[in-house]
Amino acid sequence: MAGADPGRDPHAEDLEDIALGDDYALTPTYVDMVVDAADRGDSARLKALIDALEPEDVADLMGFLSADYREDIIPLLGGEDLADVISELDTNLREELLETVDPKRLAEALGEMDSDDAADVVDDMEDDQREEVLSNLSSVDRAAIETSLAYEDETAGRLMQREVLAAPQFWTVGQTIDHVRASGDELPELFFDLYVVDPAMKPVGAVPISALLRAPADARLEGLMEEVVEIPVDMDQEEVAYIFDKYHLISAPVVDAGGRLVGQVTVDDIVGVIQEESEEDILALAGVSDAGRDATILDIARSRLPWLLVNTVTAALAASVIGAFEDHIAKLVTLAVLLPVVASLGGNAGTQTLAVAVRALAARELNASNALRIIRREMSVGLMNGMALAFVLAAATWVWMRDERLSVTLGLALIINLFLASVAGILVPLTLDKLGRDPAVSSSVFVTFITDFMGFLSFLTLATLILL
Amino acid sequence: MAGADPGRDPHAEDLEDIALGDDYALTPTYVDMVVDAADRGDSARLKALIDALEPEDVADLMGFLSADYREDIIPLLGGEDLADVISELDTNLREELLETVDPKRLAEALGEMDSDDAADVVDDMEDDQREEVLSNLSSVDRAAIETSLAYEDETAGRLMQREVLAAPQFWTVGQTIDHVRASGDELPELFFDLYVVDPAMKPVGAVPISALLRAPADARLEGLMEEVVEIPVDMDQEEVAYIFDKYHLISAPVVDAGGRLVGQVTVDDIVGVIQEESEEDILALAGVSDAGRDATILDIARSRLPWLLVNTVTAALAASVIGAFEDHIAKLVTLAVLLPVVASLGGNAGTQTLAVAVRALAARELNASNALRIIRREMSVGLMNGMALAFVLAAATWVWMRDERLSVTLGLALIINLFLASVAGILVPLTLDKLGRDPAVSSSVFVTFITDFMGFLSFLTLATLILL
Repeated sequence: MAGADPGRDPHAEDLEDIALGDDYALTPTYVDMVVDAADRGDSARLKALIDALEPEDVADLMGFLSADYREDIIPLLGGEDLADVISELDTNLREELLETVDPKRLAEALGEMDSDDAADVVDDMEDDQREEVLSNLSSVDRAAIETSLAYEDETAGRLMQREVLAAPQFWTVGQTIDHVRASGDELPELFFDLYVVDPAMKPVGAVPISALLRAPADARLEGLMEEVVEIPVDMDQEEVAYIFDKYHLISAPVVDAGGRLVGQVTVDDIVGVIQEESEEDILALAGVSDAGRDATILDIARSRLPWLLVNTVTAALAASVIGAFEDHIAKLVTLAVLLPVVASLGGNAGTQTLAVAVRALAARELNASNALRIIRREMSVGLMNGMALAFVLAAATWVWMRDERLSVTLGLALIINLFLASVAGILVPLTLDKLGRDPAVSSSVFVTFITDFMGFLSFLTLATLILL
Repeated sequence: MAGADPGRDPHAEDLEDIALGDDYALTPTYVDMVVDAADRGDSARLKALIDALEPEDVADLMGFLSADYREDIIPLLGGEDLADVISELDTNLREELLETVDPKRLAEALGEMDSDDAADVVDDMEDDQREEVLSNLSSVDRAAIETSLAYEDETAGRLMQREVLAAPQFWTVGQTIDHVRASGDELPELFFDLYVVDPAMKPVGAVPISALLRAPADARLEGLMEEVVEIPVDMDQEEVAYIFDKYHLISAPVVDAGGRLVGQVTVDDIVGVIQEESEEDILALAGVSDAGRDATILDIARSRLPWLLVNTVTAALAASVIGAFEDHIAKLVTLAVLLPVVASLGGNAGTQTLAVAVRALAARELNASNALRIIRREMSVGLMNGMALAFVLAAATWVWMRDERLSVTLGLALIINLFLASVAGILVPLTLDKLGRDPAVSSSVFVTFITDFMGFLSFLTLATLILL
């Protein structure tokens, strides 16, 4: 970090150097130093260590510490820092912190935040605490938070801040700058676009602030403005993120059902949404939800169990296929050795197709206009790789067992299973998407069930026909 | 879209309404309309359809069309639109397009782009085409592109644009605005922060443009500036994205090894990086790389085969465990039925732990300071869910077979395998990360190998001891 902060302790700079690695992530060394100071009860040292950090790093630190250490740190945070740290914390750490802080101090911290951040925090409070904190707020702040909370979670209404810079199209650049200088607190802390509005407060264009700065003082806004993408207040945050990514937006006006400007979404909120949504997809594909950094072992185990139970049922169903062929396996035990190989390769090929399909759906690169082409493509790919693996494994089996018929059986089963794996890998997510379900969430259990079941069935049926 | 464009055809608005769905994604209907116009050879209609789209949507459209249709569209794009469409295209579509466009037209299009975008495009050209195009550029543009290409791919140097707004700390707001109005083309098209620099061009702070606009004309920059995070020019883009996300940055100054300002990275480039990196993680976990939207079937099959071959080897190794116990299975074929169940549940539990670990590592939430705690936590979770599944499946097996010893064998094997799955699911990615490898890329093959191998081994060994 460069930059001056004349009031800061001269040793603070040294601590800053230790705190963050070259990659700006908090170092394990620094976490150890904090734990050590807390263990020794050296609160002066602890305060120096915390003061040297930015609020984002304090929030990060909290995630690395266990609960008793976190309690030592909270009283050391000043009002504005407390607000910033609360905004940055993961939900479950935030809930824990909210329970320990005095309602008056919390109300002060909320007053420092933008309305969208404050609403998020209030949303995480218990009912009785929420009432007490809200009653300690000014009526303006309280109204802003209550308005924000009236919008559904994960919509543009919740992401937006109500403060915007807007002006009529006949204003000049000079008039606009004078207006900004006179407005003070009514404007957002940071803004990137001026929205040009008609008398009914409907956006008709936008002027980037840099264009405003560059233009001569007597230029009119209507000559400077560009087209603007309006975000409906009830739009899902994932769609808002898609629009920001697609059109490279820095900010966008949010409009109500009547098309009137009610707020703005800025790209820094969108970066968080994109991170969140893609993390959710990674976890959903593996059948796990993030229980949070400080969840108890019981919570985590419980959050993962449902998926394992679903898989128990599907694995048992697939195994029942083997059960139906028990007599044949007793005659040729080698079948039992090769069965998991057929199923496992089908599962892997299906997962490959599935991951590609889920990504393409999320990026809006797969829809009705190219679905047939992609399905045909995946079928061909499945067939080709099925044949390649069939060749490799049939040859290996022949070297091992010197039994042509066994090699042929295994090869054919692999071709069938890899073909079906590809079909399932693309059709299952497409179908879920068509039904309005998130294809990342339950596709993989269907796909691996199909590849297990059909892998066992095709191999054992072929074995019955060819070998026995 | 709101906003006025007086030169536009009156019917264009209607087409725009059909082009994009409520979610701002291109509609299948519109793709069909384009295909239809191209099939009929109606180039006036085709031009109207293309003109109604933003460049981002034309790039999107290209992805949904097959190659011959794309060739029909390229000649319809005007100079500036061509530049924008080229910037937006996926790499393989872009390479295809670059081969068909005249070098002079390409050089013109490159002249319209920011230096970072132009360098990306030039990087995708064949050697001889690159030389011809560069020779058609002005020496200033050529130098800018060549400087950018001198930085390694996926670093801050490649992401940055060289144009920045910088000023010394003793300047006033009024002086700065006058400077901006006089500078014109030397400044970036959009800018969000003014960097305050010392006489050696080292950044000492930053002033958000909105703060500049709000401040009185006689305020000095040194009184307005805030701390600034400097990005080293050789920093990996993934780290740059982490810093932008953590500190909610809109832009950041890029500095060379001597600490001098050489350019800036803006958040709109970072949004693309975050999307890219998380898509790579999803695909890598499934053992597949994105061959691109228009890759041939052979390319795609080939890109997926190596992973399947690796899995063939690991599956064969795991199956060899079953082979070693063939005689026991012949005595009790039920073992062959239950084997895949033990392996499959272990695989699922391992994948759950793995996905959580990969996410935490990517978010820098897992490092040496909490690794031991997380490992202990995962071990406990594995043990608990192992016991839960052991109970369920042992009971189900008892109902089915009425054999207590078989139930106990299965239950113990499940506990062992889920415990090992959790250990592998956390230790494998941690180890790969420690070795400087991307934990998303090869973790899952290790983890499923361990759960298959140990699942078969534990179940069959226990069966030998308890049942036979």
